[in-house]
Amino acid sequence: MFEFHLSARSGRARAGVFTTPHGDLPTPVFAPVGTQAAVKTLTPAQVEELGATLVLANTYHLYLRPGDELIRELGGLHTFMQWPHPILTDSGGFQVFSLADTRKIDDDGVTFKSHIDGSTHRFTPEKSIQIQENLGADIIMAFDECADPHDRTYIEKAMQRTHAWAERCVQAKKRGDQALFGILQGGVFPELRTASAKFISSLPCPGFAIGGLSVGETKAEMHAMLDIVTSILPEDKPRYLMGVGTPEDLIEGVRRGVDIFDCVLPTRLARHHAAFSSEGRLNLMNAAFARDKRPIDETCACYTCQAFTRAYIRHLIAAKELLAGTLLSIHNLHTMINLMKDIRAAIVDGTFESRLPDWLEQWKGNAQKIRRIL
Amino acid sequence: MFEFHLSARSGRARAGVFTTPHGDLPTPVFAPVGTQAAVKTLTPAQVEELGATLVLANTYHLYLRPGDELIRELGGLHTFMQWPHPILTDSGGFQVFSLADTRKIDDDGVTFKSHIDGSTHRFTPEKSIQIQENLGADIIMAFDECADPHDRTYIEKAMQRTHAWAERCVQAKKRGDQALFGILQGGVFPELRTASAKFISSLPCPGFAIGGLSVGETKAEMHAMLDIVTSILPEDKPRYLMGVGTPEDLIEGVRRGVDIFDCVLPTRLARHHAAFSSEGRLNLMNAAFARDKRPIDETCACYTCQAFTRAYIRHLIAAKELLAGTLLSIHNLHTMINLMKDIRAAIVDGTFESRLPDWLEQWKGNAQKIRRIL
Repeated sequence: MFEFHLSARSGRARAGVFTTPHGDLPTPVFAPVGTQAAVKTLTPAQVEELGATLVLANTYHLYLRPGDELIRELGGLHTFMQWPHPILTDSGGFQVFSLADTRKIDDDGVTFKSHIDGSTHRFTPEKSIQIQENLGADIIMAFDECADPHDRTYIEKAMQRTHAWAERCVQAKKRGDQALFGILQGGVFPELRTASAKFISSLPCPGFAIGGLSVGETKAEMHAMLDIVTSILPEDKPRYLMGVGTPEDLIEGVRRGVDIFDCVLPTRLARHHAAFSSEGRLNLMNAAFARDKRPIDETCACYTCQAFTRAYIRHLIAAKELLAGTLLSIHNLHTMINLMKDIRAAIVDGTFESRLPDWLEQWKGNAQKIRRIL
Repeated sequence: MFEFHLSARSGRARAGVFTTPHGDLPTPVFAPVGTQAAVKTLTPAQVEELGATLVLANTYHLYLRPGDELIRELGGLHTFMQWPHPILTDSGGFQVFSLADTRKIDDDGVTFKSHIDGSTHRFTPEKSIQIQENLGADIIMAFDECADPHDRTYIEKAMQRTHAWAERCVQAKKRGDQALFGILQGGVFPELRTASAKFISSLPCPGFAIGGLSVGETKAEMHAMLDIVTSILPEDKPRYLMGVGTPEDLIEGVRRGVDIFDCVLPTRLARHHAAFSSEGRLNLMNAAFARDKRPIDETCACYTCQAFTRAYIRHLIAAKELLAGTLLSIHNLHTMINLMKDIRAAIVDGTFESRLPDWLEQWKGNAQKIRRIL
């Protein structure tokens, strides 16, 4: 279990397979986000039709509602949300720091108030693992602290805490059928990223995650940090770039040796009436689309683009029909999943390097425009 | 085109097939409602998977937004909403009387203000037909006036107007590929229903609709009116009971010779977190379901009941995940469509009369509880 086989390489890009209790996971892979045990507006059958293989769920949200013990009682997350393929849960750390109220951090853990009802809770590394063992995902995460990437003093302190917490997570883990990934931090500081990559990769984990990116740094900073850490992390284990990102970010990540990505972007864009397209980002609410007979993207093979006009989707948005969000989510997720599938095939057949300029050309400006609404 | 073949009878219940430009329509049939050219929260692929054959769309809503001329430009309603099977549009009459503001009725038509932006519009019989010809449904409706069923003086006046308008609709109709159904009215007054059924059935229409029921009268009154009109309407043309109803109403309608039904109930219940079940109406928001591992209905074969627990659906509702509405819509629509399919099969194989008591027993109390939230 949790073996990682590399099938092909192209420069530092890798095509691999990660074995999990719920099936083999071909990498590189993009995971749709099902924060509350549901990919927003889609049935699992629709997510499966999109070719998704890995879905992410959020520990913080599910701990608060409906509760991790309830999910365990109901047979675990796979049964609860009816996703028979691999699932990844985060540690709850990022959400505690970004969503919860009046948090107090100490070296032992974090006390916070629920954003739902103001009730007080405490997460420690041990508690995070306990919750994730109750949820029962295939891949689980060490509890970490994600801080402002430019505050060096604080970043170093948070990194040290993250390292100590990672060791405690490894100790706390009881279940043998879950892969615990350590998370490295270090902000935008090369020496901290180097230290963190070295420390975290020394832990007996079947994979490693790169945290604290896409949280306010520039693209150049993100790429520099990725270059550093992927040269340190072991080749024979998967690397997961957390919470990233745009199509451009995926391409830039894969070429630097990243294997796993997740992001709310495709479904969040959909809720803002926006779609990826080869012409750039489209806001389907735009009056210019009222009589537009074309699909969102004429080059796209998704259900939405095969069936519906921009005019129809704009009508659904104007009429406040929830189907608009479903159709846009299908298109945006298809775009990400299909891009990763194309990239993986190109790594395998040796055409990745030659196709890279076209992919970057297609998605670069697009991505800048997309990031604004995140 | 628009031939109606009766395949079997059981008492006054009929199993038939109505031929339309978009395929044969087996009757009796329940039509899901796609008010704004979308069955709420479902893709057409999901509606098709449910076994739906006929979908209803609302003339009033589509005239106001996105506009019937735009829909014609985009290839008509079938192409616009991607429903390749038969579609029925109402005349807009009922919505003008129930939704629009400051309406003024005269013998020529109705002037009203849009519920969306307050703009002033006028519907006449000719205008209603023109809009419905632009929309391009297979079955279209004569423009009628639906009044308070107990105000005899007004009901008689509205009925006379409805008759005159029906004649004008027949005259105004230009397209040959749409079936125009006349609508009979008459409130809860036997002599008016008799007169209306006689007058409307004298028109050269391929089918007839029964209007003005399920608008405030009792079940006994509805059944009495159905008994009267179905004994007058010709046997060789389909009868459509507009805007009805609950599972019980469908059973009571079919046994009296009704062939076509539509109702917002299944999708509206879903938005109110409620589900049909063989145990009675369930409100899935109820805390009692938080740990309930059973499906909504253990006897149900729908996607929702085959996959998900009550506990999961309750979680989705509590977490405000829109997927709850989708899963409940799938279940509720399946219940209605499947009930009609079972009933049709029983009429064909001669078991309808013997199964009738069980169906009524199962759905009677249920329906009373359901009507409260309509």
